[in-house]
Amino acid sequence: MTLAVNGGDLQRLRRLNALTVVAALRADGPMPLTQLAERTELARATVKQAARDLIEQGWVAEMEPSGGAKGRPARRYRFCAEAGRVLGLDIGAHKILAAVADLDGNVLHLAREPVTPELSRQERLAAVDRVVDACLTGSGTADAEVWAAVAGSTGYIDLDGRIVLSRAIRDWSGTPLADHLSARLPCPVLVENDSRLAALAEHRRGAAQQVRNLVYLHIGRRAGAAVILDGVPLRGSSGAAGEIGVHPLFNLATSSDLLQAGVPAITSGLAPEEVAAAVFDAARRGEPESVTAVLRYVKVLALATAAMTLTVDPELVVLGGGFSRAADVLMGPLRAELETICLRTPVLCGSALGEECVAVGAVCYAVDHLNSMLFNPSH
Amino acid sequence: MTLAVNGGDLQRLRRLNALTVVAALRADGPMPLTQLAERTELARATVKQAARDLIEQGWVAEMEPSGGAKGRPARRYRFCAEAGRVLGLDIGAHKILAAVADLDGNVLHLAREPVTPELSRQERLAAVDRVVDACLTGSGTADAEVWAAVAGSTGYIDLDGRIVLSRAIRDWSGTPLADHLSARLPCPVLVENDSRLAALAEHRRGAAQQVRNLVYLHIGRRAGAAVILDGVPLRGSSGAAGEIGVHPLFNLATSSDLLQAGVPAITSGLAPEEVAAAVFDAARRGEPESVTAVLRYVKVLALATAAMTLTVDPELVVLGGGFSRAADVLMGPLRAELETICLRTPVLCGSALGEECVAVGAVCYAVDHLNSMLFNPSH
Repeated sequence: MTLAVNGGDLQRLRRLNALTVVAALRADGPMPLTQLAERTELARATVKQAARDLIEQGWVAEMEPSGGAKGRPARRYRFCAEAGRVLGLDIGAHKILAAVADLDGNVLHLAREPVTPELSRQERLAAVDRVVDACLTGSGTADAEVWAAVAGSTGYIDLDGRIVLSRAIRDWSGTPLADHLSARLPCPVLVENDSRLAALAEHRRGAAQQVRNLVYLHIGRRAGAAVILDGVPLRGSSGAAGEIGVHPLFNLATSSDLLQAGVPAITSGLAPEEVAAAVFDAARRGEPESVTAVLRYVKVLALATAAMTLTVDPELVVLGGGFSRAADVLMGPLRAELETICLRTPVLCGSALGEECVAVGAVCYAVDHLNSMLFNPSH
Repeated sequence: MTLAVNGGDLQRLRRLNALTVVAALRADGPMPLTQLAERTELARATVKQAARDLIEQGWVAEMEPSGGAKGRPARRYRFCAEAGRVLGLDIGAHKILAAVADLDGNVLHLAREPVTPELSRQERLAAVDRVVDACLTGSGTADAEVWAAVAGSTGYIDLDGRIVLSRAIRDWSGTPLADHLSARLPCPVLVENDSRLAALAEHRRGAAQQVRNLVYLHIGRRAGAAVILDGVPLRGSSGAAGEIGVHPLFNLATSSDLLQAGVPAITSGLAPEEVAAAVFDAARRGEPESVTAVLRYVKVLALATAAMTLTVDPELVVLGGGFSRAADVLMGPLRAELETICLRTPVLCGSALGEECVAVGAVCYAVDHLNSMLFNPSH
């Protein structure tokens, strides 16, 4: 059938159809026209038109039929994940890590450089530049091929990508990180709190897949937290969401000291970074003083986690960060504490990702940002 | 121009256009075809078709041209707010209040009945039925005209509309409130926490309009809280979001007792419900013991508010409930306390709505629910 449609309506309809098609290809992978029409509930002619538009724009490509199949197989359409690249950065106190990935978020190359909390701002930014260069060069990526870059760092980061306050990294508060990276990269640059990106990574690739609402707790010598609601990291009105660690009743910043207190036999002569592991090991062996120290630490974690849980009611709490390696020792007592406080205790689990979780989260966030621009080009 | 479109695409396009038109009429009020075409950026012919569809479905009506205007005024289209009605209920410890409103949420009629916390569940439900009947009868509303009903009540209410736990109302925990109301009303029935609905009312009609993220604090002899993010009340995974009051470090449930402690001269011989007002008055006069008592109370409020603020980073905190009448006494000290704790202190303000805020919020929520069904008929 035919109907009269004006140009504006036609553009609207064609864009709507193109978005439907590209979303289907990204979600379900390459498929032939017929299947794509069924999947999108669009007419064959409509899908063909949409595919033509998308091929023209570089988002979709036709695949040569694979010889293997019986008969003459239909040629399939696929999303062009290689059409562009994204850059994810983890700028921490002890390391700087960069990841280049395709538009599906598959990491193609990693580059890293160890740093110390004592570096000056200029030294740290110079190290960031070196790692970015190494990662782009190492992956054969030209600056213009990077469609979006996301950097995760430690602290309260405002919506302009400025480090407002960072306790863990010296000389870092006030750093206009997004501006610095934008001067180097000719693409949209976003800067996010590292716990928030780690939480996103757990949601997309780790322990929290298929979970809509979760609280992520970074536990280590430094503590942090993040909230994901309906699959989206919660930034809050100014980027300060998840900063429960500064609350005086929890004081997560110094909570790891509780592990040290009262266990001299275990910790004497150890370097600060070795203390926690030693106490967790001793507690694992049932050494009474260490078990008590761990319980003291868990009580503080539980009070902070309960405050966040009672505020947003997540399905899941993910424990990440260095101390999550001791999840076997921490999880039971933490669950018991939460059950005494919460109206509904969320499921607890340990991180499923390694020390690359922030960089992986940054890559996921960059891909999300590109998708949001694709689906709302006005942004 | 014309193009070939299959039936599915045509339906899709027509629905898209109809939704665009009805959204414009709801947002900006009645307007003639030309203005509607400009406003929606649709072709005149397209708008005409969409209006025909909507008139057929009862959502839109044509208005007779008003004689007053010069020349022959164009006839205008308007959204039919009177096409259906919604019912909002506030089921509290001390009162039951029902409101019937049109599809724009304009309240047409109110009915109320005082109750006591001591009523049995059956007595309270019977009172609810009487108030519903009185409100529908009083507004000349037939059951079939009610398109959606929302009830607010006190406590942790699960996603099925069951009262899981209510401390403020005797014999209320475990009440399948949604089921009870559904047996009476042949329309979708939703049950929500009353603080959550009060927060929504403040966002739509009160102190928090044009604010995207807010925390609502119900302060009174009973305390409660709710969070609104991006204009949507946060329920959480099980409906327990905002239940910070049960956290042992804040214990808002008994926080109002702090007002009574140490001010015998002021409160001796007063009925429990008179104590707070007396202490606030004395503090307003600068009476030292009362000022101290108010500060003790404010410190607890601040710790709980800070925990929520540090978790979700709202722009605004609204103080509602009976004690908010003493906002002049509470606001200054509360702001000062929050500034010592929060990374970014939200703006503080008092409720702009009276004791009908929960019923008004219920009406707003019912209208939202209808809109969501209109925009996603699959729901």
